[in-house]
Amino acid sequence: MRVEIWSDIACPWCYVGKARFEKALAGFPHRDQVEVVHRSFELDPGRAKGDAAPVIEMLSKKYGMSTEQAQEAENNIAANAGAEGLGYRTEGRDHGNTFDMHRLLHFAGEQGRQDELIGLLYRANFADERSVFDGGDAYLVELAAEAGLDADAARAVLADPAAYADDVRADEREAAELGANGVPFFVLDRAFGVSGAQPAEVFTQALGQAWDAKPRLATLSGDGEVCGPDGCEVPAPGDRA
Amino acid sequence: MRVEIWSDIACPWCYVGKARFEKALAGFPHRDQVEVVHRSFELDPGRAKGDAAPVIEMLSKKYGMSTEQAQEAENNIAANAGAEGLGYRTEGRDHGNTFDMHRLLHFAGEQGRQDELIGLLYRANFADERSVFDGGDAYLVELAAEAGLDADAARAVLADPAAYADDVRADEREAAELGANGVPFFVLDRAFGVSGAQPAEVFTQALGQAWDAKPRLATLSGDGEVCGPDGCEVPAPGDRA
Repeated sequence: MRVEIWSDIACPWCYVGKARFEKALAGFPHRDQVEVVHRSFELDPGRAKGDAAPVIEMLSKKYGMSTEQAQEAENNIAANAGAEGLGYRTEGRDHGNTFDMHRLLHFAGEQGRQDELIGLLYRANFADERSVFDGGDAYLVELAAEAGLDADAARAVLADPAAYADDVRADEREAAELGANGVPFFVLDRAFGVSGAQPAEVFTQALGQAWDAKPRLATLSGDGEVCGPDGCEVPAPGDRA
Repeated sequence: MRVEIWSDIACPWCYVGKARFEKALAGFPHRDQVEVVHRSFELDPGRAKGDAAPVIEMLSKKYGMSTEQAQEAENNIAANAGAEGLGYRTEGRDHGNTFDMHRLLHFAGEQGRQDELIGLLYRANFADERSVFDGGDAYLVELAAEAGLDADAARAVLADPAAYADDVRADEREAAELGANGVPFFVLDRAFGVSGAQPAEVFTQALGQAWDAKPRLATLSGDGEVCGPDGCEVPAPGDRA
């Protein structure tokens, strides 16, 4: 079974939702047969790379919250994160553009290191002191190396704005096609969708439902040759080649 | 879009079908957004590891063909392979158990090297002189290294019969659930199935059809918090954490 998770590094509910999903997955009897793929979704694609802003300031500017309301919202999410055993820094955290991180996550996916990298990016953005949005690539390269990627290769991906850019945009188009307006958005075997940082029990139920569902394929007819336990078909004389 | 291909290294139509599919893929306008995953299917799971037999002898023994008929079948497939630009050795080729190769392909998948490895395994089995079924792991380790995998890690996978064994069996169960009795079997976005080494035009049509199809998800209801372009939801006071 395959679970695709659309999310953004700048999305606190994605950070919390991932932990809740993973709690459900850890208790799922067929967990060894579940493949998790991370998909790109940007909360703030219009913001320029390197244009970092303190989260509290962004919340008050963009949504007209008072500083107190913005701080309250951060504290609330921090409490939810804490309940999942996750660190969450409620002061001095930055917000910014995540396009390059998504490009790097696609590169990591090709190298079998996506889950490691997204975990480190979340930790860096939500729990650690240093800003991932300060514009330089050095910190992202460090995190990539910590995730098991080759540092030079990661640096080259970051330095080339076209690298994996189409993959990020394709994920975002697909999110829209699947009806996701916000993240996290979980898709199980392209058959079931779960929206938001639901409690672990909801993910447990979704995993069970998707596991039990038998996929139904529309099979294109035709006479392609196959091999099976009883041997290989042989085309009639004169057929094709 | 995602294409899963169930196949076996010992399956000549899989070798030919893969080339025909790739011809279609090369001409598909959205090819950069197509991910190909190889799935396991064993034609002869009951045969012991190291029990290699000449293909011609196996065909006559197992299916009661005369040596001439068996040779004719091999020549026919070789002509089909040749039409796709593939080498095919019609004399002295071996047949055997492929379980270890499938385990190795799952390991390669984790490392982003699956497509490279399956291409080399096909070439080794169908075009090259040396038998991949002679029982030793050395040749498979060589091919794994040629595919860009770490040779020691590949050797360790082959030496541990449990490594990735469940993944191979899970693929085989899924093939049965999806209705595949023979291979190659192509599944596009878990929605469309194409059976057999069809002409490239059939794959072209299937790719277009799957691309145009909009997936419909059964969305599980619930009140999970999300973040979107307009900000993050904040639970009502007293909610959860």
